[in-house]
Parts: sequence; structure tokens; C-alpha cells
Amino acid sequence: MGIVPRKAVLNVKSYQPGKPIEEVKRELGLSNVIKMASNENPLGPSPKAIEAIKKYLGDINMYPEGGCFYLRQAVAEKLKIKPEQLIFGNGSDELIELVLKAFVDEGDEVVVANPTFLMYEVASSVHGAKIKAVPTRYFKYDLKAMKKAVSKNTKVVFIANPDNPNGTYVTKYELEGFLKGIPEDTIVFLDEAYYDYVEERDYPNGLDYLGKNNLIVTRTFSKAYGLAGLRVGFGVSNPEIIKYMETVRDPFNVNSLGQIGAIGALKDKEFLSKSKKMVREGKKFIYAELKAMGVRYVPSVTNFILIELCPKPCGIAERLLKKGVIVRSMKAWGMENFIRVTVGKESENKRFIRELKNIILQGRNIIPPEQ
Amino acid sequence: MGIVPRKAVLNVKSYQPGKPIEEVKRELGLSNVIKMASNENPLGPSPKAIEAIKKYLGDINMYPEGGCFYLRQAVAEKLKIKPEQLIFGNGSDELIELVLKAFVDEGDEVVVANPTFLMYEVASSVHGAKIKAVPTRYFKYDLKAMKKAVSKNTKVVFIANPDNPNGTYVTKYELEGFLKGIPEDTIVFLDEAYYDYVEERDYPNGLDYLGKNNLIVTRTFSKAYGLAGLRVGFGVSNPEIIKYMETVRDPFNVNSLGQIGAIGALKDKEFLSKSKKMVREGKKFIYAELKAMGVRYVPSVTNFILIELCPKPCGIAERLLKKGVIVRSMKAWGMENFIRVTVGKESENKRFIRELKNIILQGRNIIPPEQ
Repeated sequence: MGIVPRKAVLNVKSYQPGKPIEEVKRELGLSNVIKMASNENPLGPSPKAIEAIKKYLGDINMYPEGGCFYLRQAVAEKLKIKPEQLIFGNGSDELIELVLKAFVDEGDEVVVANPTFLMYEVASSVHGAKIKAVPTRYFKYDLKAMKKAVSKNTKVVFIANPDNPNGTYVTKYELEGFLKGIPEDTIVFLDEAYYDYVEERDYPNGLDYLGKNNLIVTRTFSKAYGLAGLRVGFGVSNPEIIKYMETVRDPFNVNSLGQIGAIGALKDKEFLSKSKKMVREGKKFIYAELKAMGVRYVPSVTNFILIELCPKPCGIAERLLKKGVIVRSMKAWGMENFIRVTVGKESENKRFIRELKNIILQGRNIIPPEQ
Repeated sequence: MGIVPRKAVLNVKSYQPGKPIEEVKRELGLSNVIKMASNENPLGPSPKAIEAIKKYLGDINMYPEGGCFYLRQAVAEKLKIKPEQLIFGNGSDELIELVLKAFVDEGDEVVVANPTFLMYEVASSVHGAKIKAVPTRYFKYDLKAMKKAVSKNTKVVFIANPDNPNGTYVTKYELEGFLKGIPEDTIVFLDEAYYDYVEERDYPNGLDYLGKNNLIVTRTFSKAYGLAGLRVGFGVSNPEIIKYMETVRDPFNVNSLGQIGAIGALKDKEFLSKSKKMVREGKKFIYAELKAMGVRYVPSVTNFILIELCPKPCGIAERLLKKGVIVRSMKAWGMENFIRVTVGKESENKRFIRELKNIILQGRNIIPPEQ
């Protein structure tokens, strides 16, 4: 007789992360591979983060500060909030987990969009939650429909703003309308992982809505700050929600180099504006090229672009992979005719467009389209 | 109306970690503080780990290898096991969490010792498990009594070998006797965090018992390898147990510098034997001094010593703290007349003994005992 897991575990579809460069090199025997699949910052990590980490290396024999004391001070000061409004996670992924662990029992409901960041659903299913998935409309969150989906059994509503994989956002007006009338004991989890890239004026800063409803706003050092490898994210909420999440947190969940690196990166305004500029210019280039090819895409406020490539599944992601360009196949989202590509450095964007063009030309039996 | 957490969460007593040096300096305004409280390696991190990390720093903008590919190869090779028998955690703390998340529903039973590493009970209570705590006898796990405590509702038995805070171990003979007749669907979680320090010949290597029962053996890079700040632990078990634990694991739970550092440390035989030698000699010194003072202690196979100081609670840990020596108060275990001290470098051991002597002398109204 074998071992039997919790019933909920049998129904979990695991998250499939983007392939690491090393893995692609190993599997395909390629040497020159670029990764435009996981929305990392292609400029590398913040140099101030690296500098701070180097100084600390001799102390990694010691356990981390369990409460992220110094990082907490730094973030609180920067965001003009109280330190006790903060909780830190092993990436913002862990904050999803902590909210579920603190508040969601088996059979409780959570509301998500479809498609959206897959971890909401994966993590919720591990906890045995009933998942109500509300379709997006024209590649945007449909907050009105999501609000209708909220019942008295709804413990958490997950909102990615901007959304991944769509790259779109909900406006101030839409968010305010949504928050009005959401039950007080329903937690609104507002995931702002891509906050730093958004430049639209009607994009709401989640922190402005704290205190209204049971809102938790999460952000990360994995994206614009270039520290995905170190796993640091944080949540901002009211001290009561934070208290319960702290209760279920592992005491040393954020490693010390992550804490140290994040403090360094927070100070690195130059790196942040360089990264934003690169994304701005990269999008402009890619948009223009896609338009010229007659390829449809979803205009994005983030550092990635959702691209529609063929009327039916056509394996474009796999074909790009063979050319050493890793993009995200949208198969896991059930959108096989789409790919999601991270905006890269100029040379990477050019290589992606070149390889994409070749594949499309081949698909047209080598008859080039009119220029 | 406030927010309501899961019922189990209301009953959780959080884990209180040892105080970080920086925190003590801040709180007490001290500058020269030594920490002998969290069983860290006072020699620092493995130099080979640091070397490996330095080379990798430019890549921390990328997500970690979700499956710890290279670290997995390295550990599998070293332990002569198959890569698919391994799972990696954000410290071995997370492996406790993953076992519970995969196998333990609310109301299921877990069996632990008392006292032992507190995280078994803390994490189990978050999951709403019924906890059967079996007293240790003469500072040793009582495996016979623990076996009797196992019922058909017991999902997991936690065994720390060696134990923390006792510093003692169960022998091959005792472990074999215990494993015989444990139900097939009960998981035996054998925590070997301090494995590397044990030199006793009748100490069982948990890996020799894999395949018998549903055993999972966990180890860590936090102790002898000196990487507590990086949070890397691993579990070895049969592929079925591993599969379910993988299903509930966050995709990027182990940060990339942790993975890289651990690979470096694994190769560092010199550092490991230096660390073991330091602990061996440090224990000899501390034992001799304690004997000379007439202070009772539990002989330890690990890098820490449990010391009985007074017939009733006497705040020795707090008084040492004021002198800049952080040791572990045993209050959280309900053993207020004990402290647990990590074996340090020679100078640290001497300072600890000096301060302890002073406190004891003061306690005897400054009448020195006969030398």
C-alpha cells in the first residue's frame, strides 16, 4: 500500500516555470541562448545590491534577521508607512501562500481572473479552496464580473495589477468601484509585482487604498530591481492581517543576502530609471516590428508583451527555443496560439524579432510577405 | 467586524528564534557581542561557498533553477542516491512544512518528543494537526513510548537525531527497533540537521534505512557547512513521497545564491573537518570548566550543550545577554533553569565561561567556591 497525500494535493496542477538558460543549453546543446520568458531584468541585478551583498558575505553563517529588521525600516521609510504594516516573503509567491495559510480553510472560496498569474490558482488548490475563475474581457480584468462572483464564502480575491500574462491594468476608477461593497471579511490581494514599470496616470497605487476593506498590496524585488534569484517580496496591509500572516510564516523565510541586496537595490534610483527606460524603448521597437509583420499583440504597461501568433496552436515557442530564444509558451494558460515575451536589451529584442520573422516566413512557404 | 483567520491559526504559539547580534547591540547599546544561541558555525561560512557565490553575483537577476538541478546532482553524487530521491527546501524548516502540507489534514495526528526542536509542533499546529508529545527520558528520545503513541491516525512522526535542545541521539539499535512495525502509511521524518557533527559509532545514518517504511531524512547546509543565512536544506526519501512534496512546493523556494553556495560548501572537506575539530575541542574545554564549577550539563554529540543552572528559574540567559553573550534561554521549552549554548571559537568559549562564572559567583554572594 502506498502513501496517500491530502485529497486536495491529488488535484493540484503544478506551476511550470519558464526554462532556465542553463537547462535549455543542456537539453538542446546550444551555447548562445537568451531568455525572454520570465520577465527578469536583462540589465542584471542592481549594482548597489551586489555591492551590499559583497560586504556581507562573511556573515552568511548566521541566521537571517527573522523579521527583516533593516529591510523593514528601509521599505517603511520609502513607502511612508509603518513598519508593522509590512510582511516579507521568500518572493511574493510566498505571500500568496501565507494569506491562504492564515485565512483559507478547505472548501472556502477564492476568486481569480482567467487568465492571470497561475500561482493564485495553484496555491489555492493546494489549500483545497474552491476557485471561481472569472474570464478577462478583451485581455483586461473584468472587475465588475469579479465583484459579482464574490459571495459570503469568498475569503480572498486575487487581483494582479498590472496583470500577467496580459500586461494590462485596472484603472483607479475601476479599482475604486470594485472595492466599494466588498465584504469586510473578504481579503483583496492586490499583486503589484510590476508596479515599477507602469507609467499610466490612471494606474492606481494600491497603497492609497489601505484601510479600505481588507486590502493587502504586494510588491517584489524580482522584477524592476533585478533580484529574482534572491527571493524577496513584501506585502503591505493593516496590522491585524499582517499579524495572522506572521503567525504562519517560517521564522527565517527570507535569506540574509536577499535582505541585504534588497536594501541596496532600494537606494538604486539610477538603476531603476535605466531599467524603465530600456523597457519603454524596447516596447516601442517590438511593437513597430510586430505591426510591420502584421502580428497582433496586447499593448503592455509592463516589461512583457502578449503576442497572438497563429489562429491555432503552432509551436512557435518551441521553434524559437530551438533557435536559442526562450519565450513563454502560453500552453499552461490554454492559449497555445499566444506567446509572452519579456522586453530585453536592444540586441535581444532584435534577435527575437529576427528569429520570429524567419519562422513566420517559413510558415508562409518561404514566400516573403510584401514589405 | 475584524478579520477572522483559520481556527487553527488562533492556537499557534509562534517560534521565537535566537536573537541576532545586531538586535542585541541595538537593544542593549552594546558593541562587543557574541552569539552562542543558534548553533551557527562560528568559523564563518565555507570559503568555497563564498568563492562560488562571488562568481555568480552578476546573475541574481534571473530566477533560480526551480528544481535545484546542479545542487541536486552534487548532493545525489555525494550521498550515492538518485536525484529523484531529493527535495530541497528554504532551510530544512521548509521541509517540515512541505511534509505537513502534502500529507496532514486538520485533525490528523502527529507524534513529537518533548522537548525537541519546536518547529515540529509550531508548524503542525498551523496545519491544525493533533499533536501527541512524548516526554524524553533522561534527556533522550524515548522511541519505545513514541512508537506506542503512534495510532492509525498518525500521519507523521518527527525524530530529531541528534536532538535539539538535548544534544543526544538515538542509536542504530533503537532506531531499527522503532521502525519495525510502524504503519506503512505513517511518515517517519528523521531530522539529521546535526548529522555532520556526530562521531559516535552506534549513531545511525538515516540513509541506510531508506526504503523501509515511509522514511524521509533531512539535512541542512545551515550548521556544519556554515550557510544558515542562505536557507538551504534537503530531504531524501522514496520518489513517491518526494513527488507529493514537490507538488506543494513553491516553484522558486530555494534562492540561487543558496544553491550555488551549497554546491561550493559540499566540496569543502577542509572546512568541514576544521569545524568538527573546533567543536570537539570546544566541548572538551567547556565540559571541564562546567565540571570544575559543579554545573550539570548534558553531554552532547552536536555543536551545542544543554546546561542546568539553577534549581528554579534564575534568568541566567538574560544576565549573560547584558554582558554581550547571547545564549539560548530554554523558556520557550518550559525549562527555565536551563540554557543551551552553542560551542564557539576558543575565545568565545572562554568569554562565556568567564561571564558565567561571574554570574554564579554573584549568586553566591560573592563568596568564591573553593578552587
